[in-house]
Amino acid sequence: MKRIEDFKSIIDRYEIIFFDAFGVLKTHSGLVPGIERTFEYLKACNKEYYIVTNDASRSPVQLAQSYHDKGLYAVTADRIISSGQLTKEYLELKVDDGYVAYLGTQESAHYIESAGLKTLPVREVNSHNIDKVNALIFMDDEGFDWFEDLNKTVNLLRKRTIPAIVANTDYAYPVSKSDVGIAIGGLAQMIETIVGKKFIRFGKPDSQMFMFAYDLIREYRSISKKQIVMVGDTLQTDIMGGNKFGLDTVLVLTGNTQATDYQNRVEATGIVPTYICDSAVLGPDALAL
Amino acid sequence: MKRIEDFKSIIDRYEIIFFDAFGVLKTHSGLVPGIERTFEYLKACNKEYYIVTNDASRSPVQLAQSYHDKGLYAVTADRIISSGQLTKEYLELKVDDGYVAYLGTQESAHYIESAGLKTLPVREVNSHNIDKVNALIFMDDEGFDWFEDLNKTVNLLRKRTIPAIVANTDYAYPVSKSDVGIAIGGLAQMIETIVGKKFIRFGKPDSQMFMFAYDLIREYRSISKKQIVMVGDTLQTDIMGGNKFGLDTVLVLTGNTQATDYQNRVEATGIVPTYICDSAVLGPDALAL
Amino acid sequence: MKRIEDFKSIIDRYEIIFFDAFGVLKTHSGLVPGIERTFEYLKACNKEYYIVTNDASRSPVQLAQSYHDKGLYAVTADRIISSGQLTKEYLELKVDDGYVAYLGTQESAHYIESAGLKTLPVREVNSHNIDKVNALIFMDDEGFDWFEDLNKTVNLLRKRTIPAIVANTDYAYPVSKSDVGIAIGGLAQMIETIVGKKFIRFGKPDSQMFMFAYDLIREYRSISKKQIVMVGDTLQTDIMGGNKFGLDTVLVLTGNTQATDYQNRVEATGIVPTYICDSAVLGPDALAL
Amino acid sequence: MKRIEDFKSIIDRYEIIFFDAFGVLKTHSGLVPGIERTFEYLKACNKEYYIVTNDASRSPVQLAQSYHDKGLYAVTADRIISSGQLTKEYLELKVDDGYVAYLGTQESAHYIESAGLKTLPVREVNSHNIDKVNALIFMDDEGFDWFEDLNKTVNLLRKRTIPAIVANTDYAYPVSKSDVGIAIGGLAQMIETIVGKKFIRFGKPDSQMFMFAYDLIREYRSISKKQIVMVGDTLQTDIMGGNKFGLDTVLVLTGNTQATDYQNRVEATGIVPTYICDSAVLGPDALAL
Repeated sequence: MKRIEDFKSIIDRYEIIFFDAFGVLKTHSGLVPGIERTFEYLKACNKEYYIVTNDASRSPVQLAQSYHDKGLYAVTADRIISSGQLTKEYLELKVDDGYVAYLGTQESAHYIESAGLKTLPVREVNSHNIDKVNALIFMDDEGFDWFEDLNKTVNLLRKRTIPAIVANTDYAYPVSKSDVGIAIGGLAQMIETIVGKKFIRFGKPDSQMFMFAYDLIREYRSISKKQIVMVGDTLQTDIMGGNKFGLDTVLVLTGNTQATDYQNRVEATGIVPTYICDSAVLGPDALAL
Repeated sequence: MKRIEDFKSIIDRYEIIFFDAFGVLKTHSGLVPGIERTFEYLKACNKEYYIVTNDASRSPVQLAQSYHDKGLYAVTADRIISSGQLTKEYLELKVDDGYVAYLGTQESAHYIESAGLKTLPVREVNSHNIDKVNALIFMDDEGFDWFEDLNKTVNLLRKRTIPAIVANTDYAYPVSKSDVGIAIGGLAQMIETIVGKKFIRFGKPDSQMFMFAYDLIREYRSISKKQIVMVGDTLQTDIMGGNKFGLDTVLVLTGNTQATDYQNRVEATGIVPTYICDSAVLGPDALAL
Repeated sequence: MKRIEDFKSIIDRYEIIFFDAFGVLKTHSGLVPGIERTFEYLKACNKEYYIVTNDASRSPVQLAQSYHDKGLYAVTADRIISSGQLTKEYLELKVDDGYVAYLGTQESAHYIESAGLKTLPVREVNSHNIDKVNALIFMDDEGFDWFEDLNKTVNLLRKRTIPAIVANTDYAYPVSKSDVGIAIGGLAQMIETIVGKKFIRFGKPDSQMFMFAYDLIREYRSISKKQIVMVGDTLQTDIMGGNKFGLDTVLVLTGNTQATDYQNRVEATGIVPTYICDSAVLGPDALAL
Repeated sequence: MKRIEDFKSIIDRYEIIFFDAFGVLKTHSGLVPGIERTFEYLKACNKEYYIVTNDASRSPVQLAQSYHDKGLYAVTADRIISSGQLTKEYLELKVDDGYVAYLGTQESAHYIESAGLKTLPVREVNSHNIDKVNALIFMDDEGFDWFEDLNKTVNLLRKRTIPAIVANTDYAYPVSKSDVGIAIGGLAQMIETIVGKKFIRFGKPDSQMFMFAYDLIREYRSISKKQIVMVGDTLQTDIMGGNKFGLDTVLVLTGNTQATDYQNRVEATGIVPTYICDSAVLGPDALAL
């Protein structure tokens, strides 16, 4: 674990950079100030980058739009790898027909539709269509009535032996400076405990996420894992997952992990990033050089 | 583990009978048919009995009333030991002042009020009163908005280092012949995982529940644990808890555990009741003898 | 949570003091220096005390002797409540005949023998006697061959549906200034996971331990829980258990919890002691007053 | 989930077959009788196959030799994908120098040596070399003293913040018709709980295992996941892992899962294989056709 002052020296050392989104590029109050310089420098150096995110609440196009709205145009849809895309790939390979029930907003159902399958919000499951439901997806914590639909989900899984997919494994996410919200991964974990079945989880730290990005790159160029670095703010997802996949990793201190206790947390968890860096932002004169 | 044909022979063998409520005395569709004969026989023999239940949704008086409404008058408030009463005792001993926030119906708040403390539904917690909240109780799954109030609960526990008490440890409960509902114990377990703190749980299989009943009896008579038997339909709560406390136990097959697979489940869990009996109901001519 | 400078003021406030042993009265290198003054003061004030310990490796008589050997005569066998005694009570109430197999030293088997049952070290279980084994007890991490006997234990529990009792729930214990040893509670947890059955655990934080001590006191005097305080060095066992049973609690900083991070740990776990005190030792002139 | 009578029809449907080893090709008493016909047919059809196994106790060459010794020559080293190879790849990418400590036989250390690193059995860790230990690997349950070396491992991980890798995630494995042995995955899980750190696990159901095999194939031919089928005897590892990676899966009944209760277990776990087949063995006249 090496303390690095300047994120630029990280970029100079690798061919491809994987960024986590929340806590690295943006926070609850908007973009991390100055982050656009990082992408300018990446462009100037002809380095590639991907955003590897557990956010399956919207399609890559919509996720990219949210960066454009904030003035960051370098984050385009083709650069975003979301856990929703793994869900889509799973459905394409493993579910042939019938309905795919889901918990989440209509936007999040995009990943199911793009797999060519018929979607059914859990609230619309009834005694007539329940036997045609061939998978259940936990997409997002919004877009449904928690009391009605979580109870309905428990009973759907007790009646039908079907795969249950969790498209975002996070338990909670920040909604303001002081508050968090319960994420769909937390709700899914509760229901898994109650029904006693094994759910399929996509999203960091699981290596399938990194593999998806790695495969995407290898379609157009050859690359070694040694040439890729993962940048994240969370030890248990970004750093754990990157390390396990064999990548070098950078812990930045703009999100979940604080400057005051990163050392305690590294020691307590045994999850060791290759580098520690204050943030993924470059100094104001980085591009002058 | 002995198969017993006639529940009467169980009663004859002990001085005091502890009954679980749901799955033993009643089901989602009402009283277990014929159960009133069991209580008539108990009265005829001058045997004592207690209902030992994880149901903290209502006061013992209201719980008793629900039996009276169905025609069973033998279940009186003073015979009901609810996990809510342990919550009340905890609050009396450990919380001196301030507000006790809770999730649950207004009826369930009875146990907090009877401890002489001020109650505050989680939905009414705000920046003015949050510093006066000195405990949080998970009472019941109804009486609040799941989305709003579960999220609020997570943030309350992140901001205040206060005891969190779970007054009903069950994860789910039957609501109809085919469906279950998520119980407050399931919701509490999710929030405990998210906030990473240790909650205090009251209710079977925890021995404090049995101790409470045992102490109540010893106030007016001397008794040995050998003279008490616990009757329940659930291996993990009634039988596990009764066994651990040192009581003999009877598994009845009118609730959670089916006649077709009780043997598999006993072997799989290693939780062995002293006796197995079809139900706690006596034959029609039991009282003639 | 109140910081208290002088442990004497704690003693003055209560009628009965419960002490944890390891980390409070003694450490790996001997008695906590000056602890004898605490017991002199207790005697001078006519206050009562009990040692409430998860150590089931030896009988109360042998545990007391180990204090006498170090010069502390106030800790007598009748003042020691060990989780081994709960095991003994369980066996008396629930196991009538046959063999009780165990993992541990011969000394630890004392608790089984004193229940009037025949003991059988796991290494002596064989095809001739396995059907007469009616319970298995995890007593201590020493006295057996880990490879041979842990594997044998797994297979015993796969073949026999019998209660498995863990007489000490700790996962690890200090063996020197820098090292810990794996405790029988850690080994038992591994085997429970492998065989998938539910074990019965005695020892703090479980309330049955506190109930046992409380009952012992009530045999010769009346007492309220308000008049008892639990003193311990470990949040998850001593303080959690004491709080849940309804006792006031004191966290001392001579053992598992350090002065530098007790606040972090209280906040992280949500387990709040009534008081914090450097140690259970009184000042040199405490008795002069 | 479709019941298939003849394993031949499975082979006919796919390009590449992944086999689990234990419970599919062999059992504690030797090869599954007739399994050689399956490989003859695969050869006759020019279909490819890989053995995907959590067994990291020996090198692929030694594992292959054990099949040759039993008369099955079709299983060659280059067809064996062991979780040990993922460990080797991890070490090559993430550990540059120093010692790699391990628990296991000398044979199992092969995977560390072949990564070009210096090995150190845990029993040889001492105060002089401990600061040069840069990773710890749980390879196998044999080759060390459980009492001495498991305790030493706990203390090594408390003193050094280094990655801990579990090269075989299984908790237990069959050693005879009636008995199982505790596997290194079970021991590792205990130590992870005790030290509170996060270990890295390689082996089914983790998808990195399947990815490794998939990548190996793609080096010499193009393939779609639709053309590969995973054959295994264990729902939680083979079937769960294969499904999640997007492969079709076959549950065979020659190992961990019995013909009498596979339906119960599929329903209880929610892990659904694409096909069920008695065994991976072809009928005696399969090759005549």
